[in-house]
Amino acid sequence: MKEEKVFKDPVHKYIYVQDDIIWDLINTKEFQRLRRIRQLGTSYLTFHGAEHSRFSHSLGVYEVTRKIISQFERNQYEDWPKEERLLCLCAALLHDLGHGPFSHSIEKAFGTRHEDWSCRIVLGDTEVNEVLSRVSPEFPKQVAGVICKSYNKEIVISLVSSQLDADRMDYLLRDAYFTGVNYGMFDLERVLRVVRPYKGHIVVKESGMHAVEDYLMSRYQMYWQVYFHPVTRSAEILLNKIFQRAKHLYEEQYAFGFMVDPILHLIQNKLTLQDYLLLDESVMQTMLTFWSGEKDATLSDLCKRFLNRKLFKYSTFEELDQKVLARMEHVMNEMGLEPASYLEIDFPTGLSYDVYRPGESDDNFPILLLNHKDQLTEITHKSEIVRSISGIHRGKHHIYYPEELVEGLNTREYQDVWALLGSQD
Amino acid sequence: MKEEKVFKDPVHKYIYVQDDIIWDLINTKEFQRLRRIRQLGTSYLTFHGAEHSRFSHSLGVYEVTRKIISQFERNQYEDWPKEERLLCLCAALLHDLGHGPFSHSIEKAFGTRHEDWSCRIVLGDTEVNEVLSRVSPEFPKQVAGVICKSYNKEIVISLVSSQLDADRMDYLLRDAYFTGVNYGMFDLERVLRVVRPYKGHIVVKESGMHAVEDYLMSRYQMYWQVYFHPVTRSAEILLNKIFQRAKHLYEEQYAFGFMVDPILHLIQNKLTLQDYLLLDESVMQTMLTFWSGEKDATLSDLCKRFLNRKLFKYSTFEELDQKVLARMEHVMNEMGLEPASYLEIDFPTGLSYDVYRPGESDDNFPILLLNHKDQLTEITHKSEIVRSISGIHRGKHHIYYPEELVEGLNTREYQDVWALLGSQD
Amino acid sequence: MKEEKVFKDPVHKYIYVQDDIIWDLINTKEFQRLRRIRQLGTSYLTFHGAEHSRFSHSLGVYEVTRKIISQFERNQYEDWPKEERLLCLCAALLHDLGHGPFSHSIEKAFGTRHEDWSCRIVLGDTEVNEVLSRVSPEFPKQVAGVICKSYNKEIVISLVSSQLDADRMDYLLRDAYFTGVNYGMFDLERVLRVVRPYKGHIVVKESGMHAVEDYLMSRYQMYWQVYFHPVTRSAEILLNKIFQRAKHLYEEQYAFGFMVDPILHLIQNKLTLQDYLLLDESVMQTMLTFWSGEKDATLSDLCKRFLNRKLFKYSTFEELDQKVLARMEHVMNEMGLEPASYLEIDFPTGLSYDVYRPGESDDNFPILLLNHKDQLTEITHKSEIVRSISGIHRGKHHIYYPEELVEGLNTREYQDVWALLGSQD
Amino acid sequence: MKEEKVFKDPVHKYIYVQDDIIWDLINTKEFQRLRRIRQLGTSYLTFHGAEHSRFSHSLGVYEVTRKIISQFERNQYEDWPKEERLLCLCAALLHDLGHGPFSHSIEKAFGTRHEDWSCRIVLGDTEVNEVLSRVSPEFPKQVAGVICKSYNKEIVISLVSSQLDADRMDYLLRDAYFTGVNYGMFDLERVLRVVRPYKGHIVVKESGMHAVEDYLMSRYQMYWQVYFHPVTRSAEILLNKIFQRAKHLYEEQYAFGFMVDPILHLIQNKLTLQDYLLLDESVMQTMLTFWSGEKDATLSDLCKRFLNRKLFKYSTFEELDQKVLARMEHVMNEMGLEPASYLEIDFPTGLSYDVYRPGESDDNFPILLLNHKDQLTEITHKSEIVRSISGIHRGKHHIYYPEELVEGLNTREYQDVWALLGSQD
Repeated sequence: MKEEKVFKDPVHKYIYVQDDIIWDLINTKEFQRLRRIRQLGTSYLTFHGAEHSRFSHSLGVYEVTRKIISQFERNQYEDWPKEERLLCLCAALLHDLGHGPFSHSIEKAFGTRHEDWSCRIVLGDTEVNEVLSRVSPEFPKQVAGVICKSYNKEIVISLVSSQLDADRMDYLLRDAYFTGVNYGMFDLERVLRVVRPYKGHIVVKESGMHAVEDYLMSRYQMYWQVYFHPVTRSAEILLNKIFQRAKHLYEEQYAFGFMVDPILHLIQNKLTLQDYLLLDESVMQTMLTFWSGEKDATLSDLCKRFLNRKLFKYSTFEELDQKVLARMEHVMNEMGLEPASYLEIDFPTGLSYDVYRPGESDDNFPILLLNHKDQLTEITHKSEIVRSISGIHRGKHHIYYPEELVEGLNTREYQDVWALLGSQD
Repeated sequence: MKEEKVFKDPVHKYIYVQDDIIWDLINTKEFQRLRRIRQLGTSYLTFHGAEHSRFSHSLGVYEVTRKIISQFERNQYEDWPKEERLLCLCAALLHDLGHGPFSHSIEKAFGTRHEDWSCRIVLGDTEVNEVLSRVSPEFPKQVAGVICKSYNKEIVISLVSSQLDADRMDYLLRDAYFTGVNYGMFDLERVLRVVRPYKGHIVVKESGMHAVEDYLMSRYQMYWQVYFHPVTRSAEILLNKIFQRAKHLYEEQYAFGFMVDPILHLIQNKLTLQDYLLLDESVMQTMLTFWSGEKDATLSDLCKRFLNRKLFKYSTFEELDQKVLARMEHVMNEMGLEPASYLEIDFPTGLSYDVYRPGESDDNFPILLLNHKDQLTEITHKSEIVRSISGIHRGKHHIYYPEELVEGLNTREYQDVWALLGSQD
Repeated sequence: MKEEKVFKDPVHKYIYVQDDIIWDLINTKEFQRLRRIRQLGTSYLTFHGAEHSRFSHSLGVYEVTRKIISQFERNQYEDWPKEERLLCLCAALLHDLGHGPFSHSIEKAFGTRHEDWSCRIVLGDTEVNEVLSRVSPEFPKQVAGVICKSYNKEIVISLVSSQLDADRMDYLLRDAYFTGVNYGMFDLERVLRVVRPYKGHIVVKESGMHAVEDYLMSRYQMYWQVYFHPVTRSAEILLNKIFQRAKHLYEEQYAFGFMVDPILHLIQNKLTLQDYLLLDESVMQTMLTFWSGEKDATLSDLCKRFLNRKLFKYSTFEELDQKVLARMEHVMNEMGLEPASYLEIDFPTGLSYDVYRPGESDDNFPILLLNHKDQLTEITHKSEIVRSISGIHRGKHHIYYPEELVEGLNTREYQDVWALLGSQD
Repeated sequence: MKEEKVFKDPVHKYIYVQDDIIWDLINTKEFQRLRRIRQLGTSYLTFHGAEHSRFSHSLGVYEVTRKIISQFERNQYEDWPKEERLLCLCAALLHDLGHGPFSHSIEKAFGTRHEDWSCRIVLGDTEVNEVLSRVSPEFPKQVAGVICKSYNKEIVISLVSSQLDADRMDYLLRDAYFTGVNYGMFDLERVLRVVRPYKGHIVVKESGMHAVEDYLMSRYQMYWQVYFHPVTRSAEILLNKIFQRAKHLYEEQYAFGFMVDPILHLIQNKLTLQDYLLLDESVMQTMLTFWSGEKDATLSDLCKRFLNRKLFKYSTFEELDQKVLARMEHVMNEMGLEPASYLEIDFPTGLSYDVYRPGESDDNFPILLLNHKDQLTEITHKSEIVRSISGIHRGKHHIYYPEELVEGLNTREYQDVWALLGSQD
């Protein structure tokens, strides 16, 4: 590249592009599409600053990866496979390419997986594939391999996806910045200074353990304050209910007033790659806008709730008495609120984010400390702080329901239901 | 209100809501709609962080107003009319309520004015009107009066709209924060400390002049680095071309593959209030997505350019030789690029933002300094810095055109056209 | 006060003075003296930014206290005794008044206690006493009572000295700011929002527990990264050795080339209040400068080491073999390095800072959570994170010695000594 | 160097040391001495955060220089003389080595120049000289040449001393950080991106002019808000009066109760290099402490004023009526306040700082813009903003005097004096 190009970025100040291939990938239409998908899905309904896109996060992951590799090269670490640089950068940039609108809700409702779509875009008939193929005919497959974690060098994969990867480092900082939740900030430069390649792994100098503790504490704070926030979850549940209702109506051959092909094919479960690339948050939002005017009262009502942010309320509980639940559903039915569309019981185990728990998930490489005698130890064996975080399963059981249910309740007759709903935080 | 409520905000840390009316206004569907309209229109195509909404800016203007009033009350300034507090706060919160998607482009193409729509929403059959009417039957009119600058107390209007108003203070800080352009930051607390009410005006203590110089310099930097950025302008022009093409096709009774009522009524120039409230950036973006597949090649091509960020290039010029221009149009026609849809000459005077120029615009109250002898002086008479900014008309003349025009040009034959296009920054 | 006055402060932006008494206290010579005493003693030799004074910290503690009280008043909490406002503010401002230069080293060497000196200054014939007496004849005693924790209202004392007090809140933020160690930052506004007065205590709303976890994690990071840093400790030990040597020489009637009264009286253990007020870091530093030229080789050498930052090295150990230690002392004696002046074994229990450990120290009020049923719980019963921090005794045992000892060591003969010294971090 | 070393720095996050020579220079006693000299002299009496040392500033200048050179090397600019790297770094690190305590006051009172002392230390019998000589026997002379601006390559000198040099870039950021005056912040990375070597100069890409405007505006704000602050100036004047009084007493063979050699030699104007190296702010402060107890009432009184921050008041004036002045001196004499020690008339031209004024000072290289046609233009020809700053001579004439003068004045009889003193800001 003749001269390095930069993007102004609020998190990293500047993002430096030094390779033509990276520049060209950013300018493909598939990558530009990420501008139309929010990084945090429905979180903007809880934190109004959280309106940032997957486009900016993807640039950020690329930049963090570039900084790590640049430090490895500057220090001339022998365990760093220099020839993998471009592959790492491309995989970092593209790893979220397959994300669709409100991924968590859609994936749950229709069984899609964004990782699969990322690979389909990289390997399919796309501008991204065309650019990658210029490097070599095998290059797209290698990039897909890193994204899907089948590439044969752990060190390459773990830069992009591990317990201490460029993906998390960018999203923690970025989500903290845009939500304004500054206790999610950690000292990126300090972490970068203590990681290094070692025998096929990315490891952490043991004397730098505090820096990683700080990073994991930020993660812990972000998970409980932002990612698991029940209001965000409430909006996700509402979206999910809308999709379920639409599917149900479709199966009953309901005539939709507003419908476009990509959404129809999503409901029919026969999305093509071209359909998928048309699916962005604008299309979904527009669908909600016009379905608000549908004649099906339930669909219309659910969509209005989402648009106007009249979300479901929630209560926490430890154990759920099935009889109380049945009585609650009875009341709802009497009020014309079909439980299938208006009630949700949510266990935190179904959540898509994690806090640090080594060993639970086999594809997440744990964090290894390297001491001065060249011994590797998993961090929970050394850090009480990390151990305490790893052991915490603070996720609460929640029940979500419309606010008017509480208002309409005869509290004398339904004292048990009232007790369930009254236990708000 | 029983207990103050807060919103986490990245710019002001927290936004404090202390009145039920404010809380209820925020929860109306008309106010929630502002979440679906970006504060900076097409700027996100230049600065990828600029994805923040008018919702967050509106909360910010409210918060700055609240801080100013709270300082006035704490200092018990006699010239402050305490009874206007709630009116100021409501007007601050709602002043941008009528903004539509990509306002600058739409207003230019269809002759709408967001200030008018703000008043229509405040006065019409809306949730906002219902909430305001609870204060008193005249209250909605008073709020509309402040927004449209017809209210009879200058001091109330100037808190929301003047050369040193809560609107500008919030947007400069917010836009700087989200773009990452930190030279747009100024010290808000320092400015707040030097303003005070005085005989029906908001004035600045003369000894605090430096604080205002700092604010005006930030504004100057933001205008030239962000608001007037030619890439942003290029995207606005493209949108405008799309609307013009659609209007033209409509007049020729073209059968659109994708059309929804609010857009049809916009083109027909017969938007109702209910239509307008449905118009948000999602709908516009969705329109662009599906018009990309229209059979009209020009409309389809223009929409694809916007979506995939293949914007027009631009060149600067001092004077434009009409003969050269004619020859350029000739080449374009030969290449099948109709100049009406693919060429734009842009003079900076048509821009919607201003830098500080007292006296030029009659509805912008100038900045007055108050000295210890109770004399008022307009700031340009005291500050050489401000005088130098006020005198600058740095806006350049630009010509916008498709990149392939340059590539397709026979440079020997069209050396004059080449010279025009070659003078890039 | 006619108009509030401000100090520009890098940590809190502005410090607001709203009472004449506070303004006059700041302008006393005893308070101005705090400008000549560094907040972090010898830490500037580890973190070069840590040059800030106790003067700025004292203003900061005042400001945090003012913010807390102002929030209590704004919310009209009934459990807040409004009449104690000025007492709290004065005690907050003056609580560190008795600190001398390099307090930790001096207090250890000469058995002085800064709390006692604070009270002597408040109660003695000083400008501070004169200003306080203007409030009422008993006021100086009340202020001293709060500082020495004998005042009869826990809530007043705990604002200034408890596990979650204005003192700690300011110093964590300030020390993080000036050292540049930004992982010591926590969100002050967030903490302030969750504390409230309750039945004579300052408590924390249970739903705000995360905010306090964040604050305690910052504290944890600051303790291990800054306050317990072994290089800082090494400089403290060196100072202590210098004082011990000087005391020894004085007892042997050595004729000092440079001596001034306050230092002489310090060594003689007969400091008057007037002497003490003359003792600042400049005098101590000047003493070191001129003692560098003393004819006593040990005193001169130790002072040069401090001035030129040739500090003792350190090694960590788990257990200390007394035989190895004896052999090490033997080598030192042979090299002319008297162990009494050149060797120190340091156990972390003797350190002056603490991390959060409820119950260990009887004068530190623990952090209490208040739930919605008005029940109080000590935080370690609810937070695994805090429990994990409280249980950690990571302080290591260190041995400090001159670098040349290692160089001069015959490693074959003294392999055991070498092994002890080799175990550096 | 085996592995790069870092210093934690609040302004640049980390300072990276990559050469043994730099590391060894930092560890010399002459460089460590800079820890005992404040960067901003008496400014800490105006801004309590301004307690940072010349040590930290010197590291910062080194780091900015390192970043600039690293960018030049990364971009492989041909006009950059690579072989000058180490010379630039050493000169940057050492350029302030000769600063003494409260330089401005001392230099004015005794006619010393810190640049001369810097060169004497570099060339004399010092640890610094010893380290530099290891590079080559001529190296100390080359370093001194760059510091004294006699080296034969402008590009090397101008990195360290020019209108856009590493020295200013660090001190503006650092002084803004430590005072808390955040309007002195500018975007360092943005400026670094637009400078480049060109035909023996450091120039700025014309398209980056806004970045330099931003830097110059920060400078303008810092000069008027911080560097020229009249309270700081008042403290400098007081110090100067103290030195003059001491000189006068010495000439009259007064027997000082407290005196040490370096101060005596300073007064006698026969400082040796060894004396000078002992002179730091601690020694000066200690002198003030003990001179507060001198029997000469004037010396004692002046010293107490400084220590206890009872500074002279000031008034501004346009023109000074000599008769009024004479009457004022008459009153002062009657009150026992000798004008020579208690009165100062101050014209801003005598100040040691400048704002940007090309051509006025021949040793300050101006800022040159380089356009795409390789033409160089001095920035004031292109920027109205910079022109407006350059033309401003806002320095006011001040008269400084003790506060009690005003209180003791019979306002009826001395209405003219009162009028002079009454014109405060």
